[in-house]
Amino acid sequence: MIHVAEDHQDSQEEFTVTPWTVKGTIDYDKLIEKFGTTKISQSILKKFQKLTGEIHPFLRRGIFYSHRDLDWILERYQAGEEFFLYTGRGPTGNVHLGHLIPWIFTKYLQDKFNAELYFQYTDDERFLYSDSSTLEETHTTAYDNLLDLIALGFDPKKTFAFLDTDYMRTLYPIAAKISKHITLSTAKSIFGFENSTNLGLIFFPTLEAVPCFLPSVLKGKNIPCLIPAAIDQDPYWRGIAREVAPKLGFYKPAQIHCKFMPGLGQGGKMSASEPDTAIFTTDPPKVVERKVMNSFTGGRKTVEEQRRLGAQADICPIYHYYYFLFEQNDSELGKIYDDCTSGRLLCGDCKHLLASRVVEYVERHQEKREKAKELVDEFVVQDVKGGLRKKSES
Amino acid sequence: MIHVAEDHQDSQEEFTVTPWTVKGTIDYDKLIEKFGTTKISQSILKKFQKLTGEIHPFLRRGIFYSHRDLDWILERYQAGEEFFLYTGRGPTGNVHLGHLIPWIFTKYLQDKFNAELYFQYTDDERFLYSDSSTLEETHTTAYDNLLDLIALGFDPKKTFAFLDTDYMRTLYPIAAKISKHITLSTAKSIFGFENSTNLGLIFFPTLEAVPCFLPSVLKGKNIPCLIPAAIDQDPYWRGIAREVAPKLGFYKPAQIHCKFMPGLGQGGKMSASEPDTAIFTTDPPKVVERKVMNSFTGGRKTVEEQRRLGAQADICPIYHYYYFLFEQNDSELGKIYDDCTSGRLLCGDCKHLLASRVVEYVERHQEKREKAKELVDEFVVQDVKGGLRKKSES
Repeated sequence: MIHVAEDHQDSQEEFTVTPWTVKGTIDYDKLIEKFGTTKISQSILKKFQKLTGEIHPFLRRGIFYSHRDLDWILERYQAGEEFFLYTGRGPTGNVHLGHLIPWIFTKYLQDKFNAELYFQYTDDERFLYSDSSTLEETHTTAYDNLLDLIALGFDPKKTFAFLDTDYMRTLYPIAAKISKHITLSTAKSIFGFENSTNLGLIFFPTLEAVPCFLPSVLKGKNIPCLIPAAIDQDPYWRGIAREVAPKLGFYKPAQIHCKFMPGLGQGGKMSASEPDTAIFTTDPPKVVERKVMNSFTGGRKTVEEQRRLGAQADICPIYHYYYFLFEQNDSELGKIYDDCTSGRLLCGDCKHLLASRVVEYVERHQEKREKAKELVDEFVVQDVKGGLRKKSES
Repeated sequence: MIHVAEDHQDSQEEFTVTPWTVKGTIDYDKLIEKFGTTKISQSILKKFQKLTGEIHPFLRRGIFYSHRDLDWILERYQAGEEFFLYTGRGPTGNVHLGHLIPWIFTKYLQDKFNAELYFQYTDDERFLYSDSSTLEETHTTAYDNLLDLIALGFDPKKTFAFLDTDYMRTLYPIAAKISKHITLSTAKSIFGFENSTNLGLIFFPTLEAVPCFLPSVLKGKNIPCLIPAAIDQDPYWRGIAREVAPKLGFYKPAQIHCKFMPGLGQGGKMSASEPDTAIFTTDPPKVVERKVMNSFTGGRKTVEEQRRLGAQADICPIYHYYYFLFEQNDSELGKIYDDCTSGRLLCGDCKHLLASRVVEYVERHQEKREKAKELVDEFVVQDVKGGLRKKSES
C-alpha cells in the first residue's frame, strides 16, 4: 500500500481553479464537488484492468482521479466501438514536466485502446489572453511545443495535431454551429466574462469545443470522444461541448481529469510563470540539477530534528516528483516514503537521487525532441478539404 | 434641375436602421445625424468631376449621399496613392435590384479609379442570425449570389471574392488581432447585443472589419480602403474597423453610403422578405412585368382626379425606379416627373414603360449571370498562404 500524495494543508485556505488560473492549495475533492464531476471508482479501475491487463500508475495513484462518462466510454469500447482522444495545449512558453503528465497518459491510452488523438494548439487564445504576446509569437511557440508532443512517441498515423490559426477553415464552420447554441449569458456564467473581456476570448470557448466533434464531422459518423486533461479545463467541455453535443447530434465528450504536478517551491502547481520552480523540457541538465537541488522539501530545520521526527513527505515536492513520474514501482515508492518520514533518508540524498533521475529523463526527452524536428509534417494536418491530410502525405 | 426623390412623409414617423433591420419611412438626413456621418458636399462632387471627368448619376442624384473620409481618400488618390474597394453581401436568398445599387456603383469606382475590390460573402453571419437556415444553405446561396456580382462586369484581375467559411484561415488571424481591441461593452453599445445573443454573432463584427485591412496585411503595406455600401452597414466600420485601425497601424477605412431602393409597395425599402414587391435578378420576365404592373403608385383614385391634380411622384416607387436605375438621363427623368405631377402621364402607361425597361435589364443581367457560372474560379480567392490566389491560377 502506498501513501497517496494528497494536499494535507488546511483546506479552509483559499484556492482558485479556472481554465486560466490555478492558485492556492488545491482541495481536489472539493473540485469534484465544485465542478460536479465523479471520482474514478474501483469498478472503473477494474474495468481498466480487464481491458488493458493493468492499471497505469497515474490511475493507481489517483493522479488521474476524476471523470465524466468514463464508464460509458469504456462500455462502448468493450462493445466494439472505437473512441478517439482529444487534448491540447495553450502555447504560452516552454513546456514543463507538469504539462507532460496528461500527455504521457494520453499516449498510454492511444497505445492501449488503439485510439486516434486530436491535439489542439490554441495559439489564438494565448494571444487573446496575453497582455504582451503577439499572435506570431504564440504561433511560433506552438510549433516549438509540438516537438514535446512528438518526443513522447505518439503514433503519427493516429495523431492529428493542429494550430488554431492554421486550421481555421476546418474548425470555424463547426465552431459557428456550436456558437449558435451558446448565448452570451451562458458563456458569462461559465467563464466569468465581463464587459471588459475582448470579443476573441468570448468566442474562443466554441473553438475549444470543436475537436470534441471534429472526427465525427470529418468522417461523417458519430465517434465517442475521451478528453484527458487537467481538471481546470473542465468548464470548457462541461459548459459548451457537453451542452451542445445533443443539439448537434453528437455524443457528449467523456473526460478524465488529472491533478497538477506541483512546482519545486512551497505549495502550488508547477507553473511556467515561476521558472525557478518548474522544470522545462528544454532546461540544460545543469539547470535541472540546480532546480531540484534548490527545491523546497518537507525536511526539518536540523539533521538532528529530522533523524528524530522524520520529514514530511506529504508536503514535499521531491516526494511528489517520485510519486508523479520518477518512481513507478509502488514498493520502491513506499520505501522512499517510509525512509523519509522515519528520518532515515535525508533531504540532500533524496534530492540527489531525484536530480539524477530527472536529468536522465530530460536528457532522453531532449534527444527525442531533437529528432522530432524531422517529424513535424507527419503530425500536423493541413487545412484543406477533408481536414485530415498531413503535409507528409501531400 | 431634377427633383430629388426624398421621402416627404412625416419624419416624426418611427424608423429603424441597424445592420439587421431597416423599417419605417427613412429620414436620411436624420440618419446622417444619428450615425455621425457627413453629407457629400458640392466640393466632393467637383473633385469627382475633376478626377473622372463626370459625376455619376448616383452621386448627382444623391443616391450615394453620405460618407466618412471620402475627401481624404480622393486627395490621397490625387496625390498618386491607390486605394481599394471593399463591400459585401449577406447571402440570405436571391439578389434583388436594391442589392445591385451599391455594387453597380462599386463597379463604376473600380473602372474609374482602377481599384481592386475585395468582396465578402458573410455566409457565417447569415447562418448565425437566421432561425432556420443551415450553414450549408447560406454557403450555397453565397455561391449563387456571386453570379450576380460577376454579371455586373467586375474585372476578374482586380476583384477578389470570398466566402467567410471558405476563407477563414486567411481572415481569422486578422480578426483575432482586431477582436483583442474590442471589448464586450463596446460591442454591446454598438450592436445592442443582449444576454440571449449567441457567441458567433458577438464575434462576427470583427470578421466584417477584416477586409478593411486585408490587402494591407497580405501585401505588407498600408493601403487606403473605400467601402461603398448602404448606410445601415455603417456601425460595423464606425465602431470596429475605424476604432481599431490606428491601434493596428492601418488607415481608417473611408466610406460612401447609399440610400435604399424602395420596394414596389407603399413605403419601405426593397426587401427579400417581401418578395411580391421586390424584383429579383432571377425573376422570369413575366414575373418582373407582373410585379411592376402591380406596384403601388403615387396615382389618384380616378383618372379624372389625376388629370386634374397630377400624381405624387415623390411617394411613387415607379418614379423612384426611374430615378435610381431606369432613366439615367436627367432631362428625360425631369420630363417623367413633370408629366406625372401635372397629370399628363397616367400610372398604367408609366408602369408599362418602366416594366419594359426593367424586363430588358433583368433579361440582359440573366444572360450575363448564366455566363458568370464559367467565371467563378477567376473571382474566388483560395484560402492558401498569401491569400490572393484564384482557383483559375492554380
